[in-house]
Amino acid sequence: MGQKDKVVVTCALTGVMANRMQCKHIPYTPAEIAEEALRAYNAGASAVHIHGREYDGSPSIRVEIFKEIKEEIEKRCPVLMCFSTGAIGVPEEMRVAHVRQLKPHIAALNMGTMNYAKYSEKRKDFVFKFTFTNTFDEIIYFIKAMNDAGTKPECECFDIGHLESIYPLMDMGLLKNFQVSLVMGVTGGIRATARNLTYMSSLVPKNIVWQVIGISQDQWLLIATALSLGGQIRVGLEDNFYLSEGLMAGGNGQLVDKAVKMARDVGREPATVEEARQILKLNT
Amino acid sequence: MGQKDKVVVTCALTGVMANRMQCKHIPYTPAEIAEEALRAYNAGASAVHIHGREYDGSPSIRVEIFKEIKEEIEKRCPVLMCFSTGAIGVPEEMRVAHVRQLKPHIAALNMGTMNYAKYSEKRKDFVFKFTFTNTFDEIIYFIKAMNDAGTKPECECFDIGHLESIYPLMDMGLLKNFQVSLVMGVTGGIRATARNLTYMSSLVPKNIVWQVIGISQDQWLLIATALSLGGQIRVGLEDNFYLSEGLMAGGNGQLVDKAVKMARDVGREPATVEEARQILKLNT
Amino acid sequence: MGQKDKVVVTCALTGVMANRMQCKHIPYTPAEIAEEALRAYNAGASAVHIHGREYDGSPSIRVEIFKEIKEEIEKRCPVLMCFSTGAIGVPEEMRVAHVRQLKPHIAALNMGTMNYAKYSEKRKDFVFKFTFTNTFDEIIYFIKAMNDAGTKPECECFDIGHLESIYPLMDMGLLKNFQVSLVMGVTGGIRATARNLTYMSSLVPKNIVWQVIGISQDQWLLIATALSLGGQIRVGLEDNFYLSEGLMAGGNGQLVDKAVKMARDVGREPATVEEARQILKLNT
Amino acid sequence: MGQKDKVVVTCALTGVMANRMQCKHIPYTPAEIAEEALRAYNAGASAVHIHGREYDGSPSIRVEIFKEIKEEIEKRCPVLMCFSTGAIGVPEEMRVAHVRQLKPHIAALNMGTMNYAKYSEKRKDFVFKFTFTNTFDEIIYFIKAMNDAGTKPECECFDIGHLESIYPLMDMGLLKNFQVSLVMGVTGGIRATARNLTYMSSLVPKNIVWQVIGISQDQWLLIATALSLGGQIRVGLEDNFYLSEGLMAGGNGQLVDKAVKMARDVGREPATVEEARQILKLNT
Repeated sequence: MGQKDKVVVTCALTGVMANRMQCKHIPYTPAEIAEEALRAYNAGASAVHIHGREYDGSPSIRVEIFKEIKEEIEKRCPVLMCFSTGAIGVPEEMRVAHVRQLKPHIAALNMGTMNYAKYSEKRKDFVFKFTFTNTFDEIIYFIKAMNDAGTKPECECFDIGHLESIYPLMDMGLLKNFQVSLVMGVTGGIRATARNLTYMSSLVPKNIVWQVIGISQDQWLLIATALSLGGQIRVGLEDNFYLSEGLMAGGNGQLVDKAVKMARDVGREPATVEEARQILKLNT
Repeated sequence: MGQKDKVVVTCALTGVMANRMQCKHIPYTPAEIAEEALRAYNAGASAVHIHGREYDGSPSIRVEIFKEIKEEIEKRCPVLMCFSTGAIGVPEEMRVAHVRQLKPHIAALNMGTMNYAKYSEKRKDFVFKFTFTNTFDEIIYFIKAMNDAGTKPECECFDIGHLESIYPLMDMGLLKNFQVSLVMGVTGGIRATARNLTYMSSLVPKNIVWQVIGISQDQWLLIATALSLGGQIRVGLEDNFYLSEGLMAGGNGQLVDKAVKMARDVGREPATVEEARQILKLNT
Repeated sequence: MGQKDKVVVTCALTGVMANRMQCKHIPYTPAEIAEEALRAYNAGASAVHIHGREYDGSPSIRVEIFKEIKEEIEKRCPVLMCFSTGAIGVPEEMRVAHVRQLKPHIAALNMGTMNYAKYSEKRKDFVFKFTFTNTFDEIIYFIKAMNDAGTKPECECFDIGHLESIYPLMDMGLLKNFQVSLVMGVTGGIRATARNLTYMSSLVPKNIVWQVIGISQDQWLLIATALSLGGQIRVGLEDNFYLSEGLMAGGNGQLVDKAVKMARDVGREPATVEEARQILKLNT
Repeated sequence: MGQKDKVVVTCALTGVMANRMQCKHIPYTPAEIAEEALRAYNAGASAVHIHGREYDGSPSIRVEIFKEIKEEIEKRCPVLMCFSTGAIGVPEEMRVAHVRQLKPHIAALNMGTMNYAKYSEKRKDFVFKFTFTNTFDEIIYFIKAMNDAGTKPECECFDIGHLESIYPLMDMGLLKNFQVSLVMGVTGGIRATARNLTYMSSLVPKNIVWQVIGISQDQWLLIATALSLGGQIRVGLEDNFYLSEGLMAGGNGQLVDKAVKMARDVGREPATVEEARQILKLNT
């Protein structure tokens, strides 16, 4: 059977921005994160996106934390792992140490610098706004570390220019086997509309697999569009707590459940881990 | 409450191409058609698209048949009605007599001439192929009849050029209050892809409501895309028998059920008949 | 030297719709057509599109006429030739006899059926309107004749559905080495806008060369867009008499002059005949 | 006479990145800049974009310099003036003082933060790369200063997300009468392709005028596309020195000459200053 109708469902389990005051199902400890990974896997996810947290829930990029998460997940299921490398105000070496030492299947690579904000129409004001900096020097540094580790970069693109920044890096021979995430809905980056996703996905380099990451309330609309366009999808408490307006998910498993159901509605089945390895052309 | 997230779900109950050998749930008689209309209405459809059939199931454009269908439906529910006007090899006067006499809310208006075919990749041959002729003279004739009847034209566009044929007719003052159907997936017309729907819908004249009509297996994919783009949707046994590959629907109600569920998955509720009247700007 | 910035300029010398009452420079006889071909060639055209005319200017598809045109052109210059096959109300065998016997480099293949009209905003009426019929049976018949003759089909696509009708014919193994013309600006077909051309050209099958054919006043706008998009271009008295509003060209050479100048303005040089053979992948 | 076919040609006279070692025609002093403004005006420009330079050519944002430039230009011709506000490592108050005091017709407003780089395929390396920071706080600060001065903001958008950052600022009531520049071809921002321009321009808010700014060699290609799409255009030594590959312009006048010629090739005439005021909806 062909792979064309399979869809890789990734679950972003925890992130670092949200806490249990906002959603009580957000996992903090490695064991909690691994339990959520298992629930996502059982619901049909073939990959999980992982941020580190200390036991109290605060953001962490300590290698020991990632090591513990990885081991706890591996004890439970064979789901593929993508490590985050994002962190603000942290030296680049520290942001990639866990990749060097733990060699995950995939690691996130932020492809550009931008204003990163959230705007509230109700308040007529920004909820937050900061500068998200990822210089070409940093990007190149990270790619080299990932190439050394045999880890596949997942290029996180918040705008067209981020996506097109891939070309010089391919031309320099740095980016070879990689995948692309189209991240939509951050104010300062490209908006979360079906039209934008349709256009942006048409610019992904040939033979490169892409997924959509929709931030907050318009996520499900983007999932529907990505499924129709033949893309892969990501859900999870990191991106969006809600199954529908006002209905908070009771954990990552329920979010994956909904994504799988939506995939089947348009005739696509979730890829198994083994199928996802083939679709994503993973070496490891 | 705003209308922007409401979606008008239309159900095309029977068509004329398919028969009960292919799908036993296809209604033939006016009472059967009305029963299916009721099931569609109960499932969330606010409009139904109606072709006429004689009691043996053969195609019919007799006014008496449409009259009976209309009365049977009105006995059961207040769902909006759109009458087909398509028929091959029949004088134009006969194709519009039921509109003149019965004055339905909406009537279909085919906007172009084309090769109308179905191709089978498996057989490496066409399943059927014919010429579907709708000249500008015929189109103008139909518009005038609809305008006289106070019936709103629903412009059926199988390609970009059909959609853009609206402009001269607006400029001549003939097309005023109308809606648009983007019909996708007929070989000879525009193909059923999410990209095509995204582009084609961007060309619909300002402030004009559009729906997608997807022919056969790719219908659900187009429904997902139209829902994301803010368009209206049509399902029904005329367009597609299947809930998913290999699973034939047990009637129009089940197809509407699925469409409503998909709408809710992206945060849209099916419009009630009253809301649909507002969205479609119906006078009657 | 790379071919990527070269552009194949084709000149449509005469057509059949226009006469010397409208533009006195329209060539009628084979020798006149050949003289115009030479002027186009000298101005930078590497191919000419040829319709046949009797000596009095009336439309002709007689093989003898095409034979004479071909010989007169060959006496003067090595420009590539594309034969028209369009004719209304003529048996298909007669429409392709000149291809069978004279084996031109390229022949036009109309890819669809449509309303073919011209609308005047000033008059608020159609200038003309008719049905242009090219059934799949006819298309297949012509392809087979061209394949037998070793002539490359140039698929004339007046709308997205015409372009996408190429896929079943490729799948049947009929269309192999072919090129595509995007014909824009006929009412009933796709409109002549830069946005439409940008989208339509993105749907041309991979590795297939395309040109734009713009009908009447918006031609130069489409030429500018096609040049920017990397497409090939066609000009000529068949498509448009005017160098600019109100300024009629003094022959085909002046139209090619302008096209070449516009190409150079965006950094592209006209292809020589030899370069055009490579770009168009001509066998003969 | 309708304005729709008129095009506002703006000339960016000098910039701050280039010097006379690279192009001897770059003006430094206010009088030199004003002489170039006159040449641009005589060639058909209705607006000029102005960066300040000290007499030795080094970048300057001193109010005295801008005042002198403004007076020198006003002595020579009535061309509209747009002041740059870009400067790296300079307090925001200093970047907008000339706007507050001199109240130009238009001032540039950089709408986003990004990696700003140039890549050389030949060298397989970046020519330069830096972070171009324009936070929402700075943007809001500048808008308020421009609103106070009665100066119209020209929103410089290097990517889709920059363009879409306009929406919250409109929603907050800050951005009212403004125009948009689509800046293409900076590595880190959106690439200079006809397809990107076609899409990006379709996202400009309704009734807002846009122009394209193409950086370096692909500028002319973007000019051709913008002219076809109905946009306004900008040329000038700041953006590109070359009339064609290897042929450096002998001053801004020659660049405007070429732009005007290209506009006429597609049927558009350069707007006079008075027409430009209307198209740009200038109050002053």
